[in-house]
Amino acid sequence: MAGSTFGNIFRITTWGESHGKALGVVIDGCPAGLSLSEEDIQPYLDRRKPGQTSISTPRKESDQVEILSGVFQGKTTGTPISLMVPNTSQKSSDYSQIASCYRPGHGDYTFDAKYGFRDYTGGGRSSGRETIGRVAAGAIAMKILNQMGIYVTAYTKSIGPISADMACFDREASLKTATCMPDYNADRLALAYLEECMKRKDSSGGVIECIADGLPAGIGDPVFEKLDANLAKALMSIGAVKAVEIGDGIEVSNATGSHNNDAFRSVNGKITKKTNHAGGILGGISDGSRLIVRAHIKPTPSIFSPQETVNQNMENIEIAIKGRHDPVIVPRAVVVVEAMTALTLLDECMLNMTARLSYLTDFYQK
Amino acid sequence: MAGSTFGNIFRITTWGESHGKALGVVIDGCPAGLSLSEEDIQPYLDRRKPGQTSISTPRKESDQVEILSGVFQGKTTGTPISLMVPNTSQKSSDYSQIASCYRPGHGDYTFDAKYGFRDYTGGGRSSGRETIGRVAAGAIAMKILNQMGIYVTAYTKSIGPISADMACFDREASLKTATCMPDYNADRLALAYLEECMKRKDSSGGVIECIADGLPAGIGDPVFEKLDANLAKALMSIGAVKAVEIGDGIEVSNATGSHNNDAFRSVNGKITKKTNHAGGILGGISDGSRLIVRAHIKPTPSIFSPQETVNQNMENIEIAIKGRHDPVIVPRAVVVVEAMTALTLLDECMLNMTARLSYLTDFYQK
Amino acid sequence: MAGSTFGNIFRITTWGESHGKALGVVIDGCPAGLSLSEEDIQPYLDRRKPGQTSISTPRKESDQVEILSGVFQGKTTGTPISLMVPNTSQKSSDYSQIASCYRPGHGDYTFDAKYGFRDYTGGGRSSGRETIGRVAAGAIAMKILNQMGIYVTAYTKSIGPISADMACFDREASLKTATCMPDYNADRLALAYLEECMKRKDSSGGVIECIADGLPAGIGDPVFEKLDANLAKALMSIGAVKAVEIGDGIEVSNATGSHNNDAFRSVNGKITKKTNHAGGILGGISDGSRLIVRAHIKPTPSIFSPQETVNQNMENIEIAIKGRHDPVIVPRAVVVVEAMTALTLLDECMLNMTARLSYLTDFYQK
Amino acid sequence: MAGSTFGNIFRITTWGESHGKALGVVIDGCPAGLSLSEEDIQPYLDRRKPGQTSISTPRKESDQVEILSGVFQGKTTGTPISLMVPNTSQKSSDYSQIASCYRPGHGDYTFDAKYGFRDYTGGGRSSGRETIGRVAAGAIAMKILNQMGIYVTAYTKSIGPISADMACFDREASLKTATCMPDYNADRLALAYLEECMKRKDSSGGVIECIADGLPAGIGDPVFEKLDANLAKALMSIGAVKAVEIGDGIEVSNATGSHNNDAFRSVNGKITKKTNHAGGILGGISDGSRLIVRAHIKPTPSIFSPQETVNQNMENIEIAIKGRHDPVIVPRAVVVVEAMTALTLLDECMLNMTARLSYLTDFYQK
Repeated sequence: MAGSTFGNIFRITTWGESHGKALGVVIDGCPAGLSLSEEDIQPYLDRRKPGQTSISTPRKESDQVEILSGVFQGKTTGTPISLMVPNTSQKSSDYSQIASCYRPGHGDYTFDAKYGFRDYTGGGRSSGRETIGRVAAGAIAMKILNQMGIYVTAYTKSIGPISADMACFDREASLKTATCMPDYNADRLALAYLEECMKRKDSSGGVIECIADGLPAGIGDPVFEKLDANLAKALMSIGAVKAVEIGDGIEVSNATGSHNNDAFRSVNGKITKKTNHAGGILGGISDGSRLIVRAHIKPTPSIFSPQETVNQNMENIEIAIKGRHDPVIVPRAVVVVEAMTALTLLDECMLNMTARLSYLTDFYQK
Repeated sequence: MAGSTFGNIFRITTWGESHGKALGVVIDGCPAGLSLSEEDIQPYLDRRKPGQTSISTPRKESDQVEILSGVFQGKTTGTPISLMVPNTSQKSSDYSQIASCYRPGHGDYTFDAKYGFRDYTGGGRSSGRETIGRVAAGAIAMKILNQMGIYVTAYTKSIGPISADMACFDREASLKTATCMPDYNADRLALAYLEECMKRKDSSGGVIECIADGLPAGIGDPVFEKLDANLAKALMSIGAVKAVEIGDGIEVSNATGSHNNDAFRSVNGKITKKTNHAGGILGGISDGSRLIVRAHIKPTPSIFSPQETVNQNMENIEIAIKGRHDPVIVPRAVVVVEAMTALTLLDECMLNMTARLSYLTDFYQK
Repeated sequence: MAGSTFGNIFRITTWGESHGKALGVVIDGCPAGLSLSEEDIQPYLDRRKPGQTSISTPRKESDQVEILSGVFQGKTTGTPISLMVPNTSQKSSDYSQIASCYRPGHGDYTFDAKYGFRDYTGGGRSSGRETIGRVAAGAIAMKILNQMGIYVTAYTKSIGPISADMACFDREASLKTATCMPDYNADRLALAYLEECMKRKDSSGGVIECIADGLPAGIGDPVFEKLDANLAKALMSIGAVKAVEIGDGIEVSNATGSHNNDAFRSVNGKITKKTNHAGGILGGISDGSRLIVRAHIKPTPSIFSPQETVNQNMENIEIAIKGRHDPVIVPRAVVVVEAMTALTLLDECMLNMTARLSYLTDFYQK
Repeated sequence: MAGSTFGNIFRITTWGESHGKALGVVIDGCPAGLSLSEEDIQPYLDRRKPGQTSISTPRKESDQVEILSGVFQGKTTGTPISLMVPNTSQKSSDYSQIASCYRPGHGDYTFDAKYGFRDYTGGGRSSGRETIGRVAAGAIAMKILNQMGIYVTAYTKSIGPISADMACFDREASLKTATCMPDYNADRLALAYLEECMKRKDSSGGVIECIADGLPAGIGDPVFEKLDANLAKALMSIGAVKAVEIGDGIEVSNATGSHNNDAFRSVNGKITKKTNHAGGILGGISDGSRLIVRAHIKPTPSIFSPQETVNQNMENIEIAIKGRHDPVIVPRAVVVVEAMTALTLLDECMLNMTARLSYLTDFYQK
């Protein structure tokens, strides 16, 4: 199946494996006339790089992006933008261990079941490095959204039992802390918790939240292409995500209607809501209030503790996974969540431009 | 946007509003040679009908399905199957109330924001009746999956604070109880809780779980078209769903890797897992164990309690929604969750048939 | 495969067989706010009805269209428009002949080869009646295009050796003559030719031309989704079409560049072309001049002359096809060509609305 | 619009401009297990290279392809295959001429009309170099088709008034001659004709024919996704193609049914046809006989003769296009036609694998 494409009008196709020659993405459907250079994209890639903090692997991945097409004299031409990130430091060291057995919590076994064999070096296509293309494309979507007055921000909401205190939300903190928490205090507690995990040769899960401001009411669709449905797919397509919530999310199942309904109020001739349990979406369509989504990330499956598994000769064995691995996936996935949200929102905004007959007649008769 | 289509190879397109002449679905891509009559579909539609229990509205919706095309001499021909359910008892009674104001928790406002106006009778396209097409198409997907050895079952996991005890899971109970809980005792407790809600002029949310057995390992895709991503979209596209979980779902964010990883074991020359925290999906691809997904459903937004809102003249008003409404959406949505899961699985199984070169050469050279 | 859907943003899905209960189409992605009733659609369906002239079968097909959804208070709501045409006069008379053998020039054999069996009554899904859904949907596309200032017209260019004289093009004639030729004289000659064909128990092919005026420059796409590529697919998807030409079409292969290139001229500050060999498309994108496409239609395969063929027992036999059949397909296909062209143009115009960044920022920041 | 993607299951996305850093293609949906290296692809790219004969420009384009992903240990993994061809010899010489005016017959004006500006170096995205991605992907499709027993061959049928004599068809000749004609004699005559054209500072059009053998009956779809419809789109999407024919093509419009119908015969228990006017397709589905399609190619629009046009200041000017250009596009487009046909056939064969219920149950229950 051709499953490496995302989006309808603003459509991206990613490619590349962890230890191949390069990874990349083709962005097709980007409007003409956007100023674009590598400098617009690189900062987002830098946010997902490892080797930057005590809780991420000290591997050095330079991950320098190069624009190969679609930009002329500093502006997008409307034709496909091809971005490439060469793999420079991926050494195919000793992969005999993961070549011959199925690591628990990884896709090794399911890849073999589907394709008959797999690229086992560094996880191949199911490596976290697969997200490079998403993040690079997301950077372009973000730049366009910003020019439309729409702003998307993701951050770490919790790591294991440690949650950020949203009362003292600090956007700067989420960009500076090792955990990407928007709260310096929670960051310190989470780092302590993660050190404990590492001592126990174990790993931790966590939650990423993403918000969008400036999204006008009316974006999305009432049935299968609900805005929340597409966001759910976008986030669940990120490796390690096992649950997605919109607004109050799982709490709605234990709530009552009188609590969960958001009252409408007219304020200065504009519709507003007194609360936002809905997370900015009603009936699959944005309601003009802040968009709120959350992704629950499972603990890093690669751990140093010994685990039971099976090798390719169908023998039951025990393995302790060698090498270096982060005790938590969350901080490096924050920018991926941001990217996937931005890609979804931009595509939906584009699709919305034909919702009314007057939009067409205005456009074609001016 | 053309948002009423779902699926790639087995593709359905639904149409119809709550109070229009009819609702329906076109199923395109159904393989030729399947025995099919209205009797295969009607039982699924009957499961979503209201007026059947103390907790659903006493409206009578006969919801009789008719096959209009695609079946010849009792078998599907491979061409589109058009199914129609006439709207017989939808009387356009007094809709002046909802015509002129935005009901909290409903899509009234967002429809107006998107399209400039809306069909306000009975909720129009965003009515729960929109799911008739999904359920009818799902019935066909279920029949095919069963012939492939795959079985999908959904049931109510909880209503408000009352959860089914999965230790005494009883499939029969879920088909017979008013709540669709697979546990007669929990059903009784939940009904009592819902009566309380009704007395308080309020409503309740709940959780639907869906499992699939017999799904072989290898179904799904590693990147954007992950099996879990498509399931998340399928379920989140059902009105009132605000969160979707796979396997342990939200619990993974507070779990450790040593707990969350499922150990592999070779048993009689077959790969199995000792636990199933993953809910049957690893790296976006099925692992051969039971598939487990959950949808969190918000409380019915239509409640008798007075609520603050705005009318179309942008005046702040208070409304108490008239008419009849269920205190909980969950029981009637169970078969919808089942249908959306079946539609997703069948489509993914079809897409999987070209995963290996040998599948093609075997098919075309025999 | 799900092959009954056409279009990206303005997307139609047709269904129905010649002798089933009904035929129909679901139009998804129609903008909200279009005035629409059955009266907008019926005249187009009437143009493809048989039993109207000496050269079409005297069968009576009333083909009354009914709108089942998507229209509220006389206007489209933005949700799917379901149109149905009941089959009233299709009597399953004696089909033993075509049930048991493969008619030359028809899809009987290929349907069996693909699906294992077929609906043989009246041609099933490959009957000309399949085009009802296309024409009904095309009527809506035409209405929208007209409001955008774009006008599409198809007519019979030739029947067998008889061509319309384009020097005396008369739009009225094409709507009134039995042949749909825009030239009363050619019509008379063509009718005489067709009578001859009928006497010889034979049939004739012909050419349909379609033009569009008012299409602005800039519609289409440079690579796979070229405007001409999509028009070619649209027209070649009509049964019996065996060749499609754009502008000078096949003549370009024997032309020289100095002849074939259209010179540009600036006239009153507007770009025009001195000639239009290109038929209004350059590099896959409309150039603002008249769009010109042609479809070559094969002779009606059902003829009274005896033909050699094979029956389902693989015996070589001879058949003379019974019943009534038109000596030429062309006149009834004219409105189908018009519909497919309109559907293609509208969809492309919609897709064009995100071609430049300024289109988005203008739309979202006003 | 995202218009650089072609195919459903075997899906390619091309990118790159004539004078950018590189051109390339991402092939997604290629089955796992195919032996693949650059050596499989390079020969096809070499067939479209210029600078090889007296009738193609002496520019040196090395056009070396590199596989960047999707292949592991010499076999495809089922994940996206990224192919890149660096632009090595494209010097941005003096483009002031084409930067400031619209070349007749080229897409310069329509690009500006759509996107607001254009990459004018070497034609940008609408250069013939855009086809590199198509040809590279087509090579992979060809290799798979061959393993399925399906063989695709394209050749030059005519150049201007000179046609190959199909009675003495010689596959070798089409690979060796400068014109790609399968007839050495016609090649000589055509070369003489082209020299004349060049002397007159003019260019010529021509016809490419493509045949496929071994395609089983049953491939394709009855309505919008007819095999011929998809082939028509595939070929018309190649720059300079202005008409597409299937089988007898344009001749059907002047034929009679008794001539045009192909009689069926049972030979050794197999259905065959006595003639093949249909070109191997009936009712949109392959009939098991040879597939025959033709593309009519317009004359090279770049000619040395002076032409009238408009510059970007909207002034009427006269230009004579400088530089080097081939007097005919046809020979270099032959392999492109072959590639697009192969891509279409492979995708359709894949889509056909779910046409019958028994195909699914056989696949999943073995």
